[in-house]
Amino acid sequence: MEVIPFLEAVHPELAQVECLLQEVLARAAAPLGPGLGQVLAGGKRLRPALVILAGRALDGGGPPFQLLAAALDLVHAATLIHDDIIDGAALRRGRAALHTLWPPAAAVLAGDYLLGEAIALLAELDRPCLTRAFAELLRAACAGEIAEILGDASADPRTAYERRCEAKTAALFAMGLEMAGLLAAAAEPQLAALRRYGREFGLAYQIVDDVLDLTVGEDELGKPAAADLRQGLATLPILCYLERATAAEDPVRAVLAGRRDPERVEAAVQAIRTSGAIEAALDEARAHVQQAQVALMGLPESKARRMLGELAVYVVQRRR
Amino acid sequence: MEVIPFLEAVHPELAQVECLLQEVLARAAAPLGPGLGQVLAGGKRLRPALVILAGRALDGGGPPFQLLAAALDLVHAATLIHDDIIDGAALRRGRAALHTLWPPAAAVLAGDYLLGEAIALLAELDRPCLTRAFAELLRAACAGEIAEILGDASADPRTAYERRCEAKTAALFAMGLEMAGLLAAAAEPQLAALRRYGREFGLAYQIVDDVLDLTVGEDELGKPAAADLRQGLATLPILCYLERATAAEDPVRAVLAGRRDPERVEAAVQAIRTSGAIEAALDEARAHVQQAQVALMGLPESKARRMLGELAVYVVQRRR
Repeated sequence: MEVIPFLEAVHPELAQVECLLQEVLARAAAPLGPGLGQVLAGGKRLRPALVILAGRALDGGGPPFQLLAAALDLVHAATLIHDDIIDGAALRRGRAALHTLWPPAAAVLAGDYLLGEAIALLAELDRPCLTRAFAELLRAACAGEIAEILGDASADPRTAYERRCEAKTAALFAMGLEMAGLLAAAAEPQLAALRRYGREFGLAYQIVDDVLDLTVGEDELGKPAAADLRQGLATLPILCYLERATAAEDPVRAVLAGRRDPERVEAAVQAIRTSGAIEAALDEARAHVQQAQVALMGLPESKARRMLGELAVYVVQRRR
Repeated sequence: MEVIPFLEAVHPELAQVECLLQEVLARAAAPLGPGLGQVLAGGKRLRPALVILAGRALDGGGPPFQLLAAALDLVHAATLIHDDIIDGAALRRGRAALHTLWPPAAAVLAGDYLLGEAIALLAELDRPCLTRAFAELLRAACAGEIAEILGDASADPRTAYERRCEAKTAALFAMGLEMAGLLAAAAEPQLAALRRYGREFGLAYQIVDDVLDLTVGEDELGKPAAADLRQGLATLPILCYLERATAAEDPVRAVLAGRRDPERVEAAVQAIRTSGAIEAALDEARAHVQQAQVALMGLPESKARRMLGELAVYVVQRRR
């Protein structure tokens, strides 16, 4: 198991989460188990770490939080499988995406299967409020993504980007942290603080993901570089570039318009990298981290709260 | 709302289920709501009827059973959406399948959304055992379908067919009825009776579905006729035919092998219809109905139990 550097303090609990995930894999007979193992391997376990830290920050912790942490990582894996089908992505975490190894139909069902496993772990906690929160998460995230896919193509691209980040990433972080708060029987102001921290954390995380897509090579990234650009997806660094670009003949606009020969993509990536757009996007990510730190003030001072703050900073500094 | 003839006695409760489903649609903003409405419209509400009847047979009933009934119909709708994507089916209940109206990605998410709505309704019941049963249902059904998709092509075709029916249809009926029993706090022998009735009911239902695919025209069926045959899917009536067919040049084998010109498909359908295979398949469906009736003996005698028995007979006699 790979652990984010300064998280050694919660390593024993993360190891327990890993055991729960391995049990899920062991329950699934071949070929399902190995296929799912492929998806679960190599994750940073960021969502489990957040749940464990939130639990500690609220004077909780122990097995129930490990169960919740594992459940959220399973939901995350389910969304990765369905998202990769949706995006037609061929690689994930340096390995072949499941829908390229299996018929896409089986991959759709594998996502559903992991949702079932997540619900099974949540049910073990015997707390209906958590099941309710989980249902709400699934509804909100799916509705957001559907609205985005079917959405008005003439919508302001920044608004469209924010909505996508919200549905695709921030919703799971926000709801995951709120669920940790519910499990710790936290009062509403603390739940709100956790939700807000999770949302800002998630927005920062997604922006950095979109930056890394343009600044890091395939070897480090574990998936093809500049994939968003080649899919015509205007992520924040690309939007920051377009807001600065004035030339009539622009390589980035050309790629977004569908002229995707390798030379033009390379020229577009270079143009973005040297335009200041990367720094501008990272500035916005840092602003979200700032907001996440402000939100943390709503929790009691503790070592775990400090670690939540550091984790948000780490997310913007990470290289993969 | 269309109601199966002799179910008038539970009509008021089914109308309440319909209200719950309408509330789900109302919660989803456009374009999601209308799209989902398209999927939910026109169903026979067989699963809700079974839950309501099982509740009454166990001296239960009322709003909790209506919630469970609506939740199961949502799960069913979610599996229809995902199954139609998997099968590439263009029509469903006489209307265009969702994945032909929306990008398939949005349809995948619409299925996930309905699962979220189903979990939300279950969570309202505040009975963790139901959430556990639901998780188990999702896991078992998905694992079964995945195993079938990825399965050994050399497996005995009858075994493959039974496994597919089990995962695709019978699992939801069996677990839905067991959940009704759990909600009524029934003892284990009664839960086992409900599970067994549901499984046999589901197997009979699927066989009849597969027969109707070959015997009823598109207008009545609400989807293209002989779709299974044209997809090369050897359903029970087709297997019964093949077990009887001895000619070297056989139109059914030709279609299954991929020679799917309209004349050959028509000749194959005629060959199956006149071979006695349809009656042989229906005999097997009736045998499952018999087993379902035997299972019902495990429940106390009541009007609702008699209706469950009649419903199983109806399922084999239905024309759509």
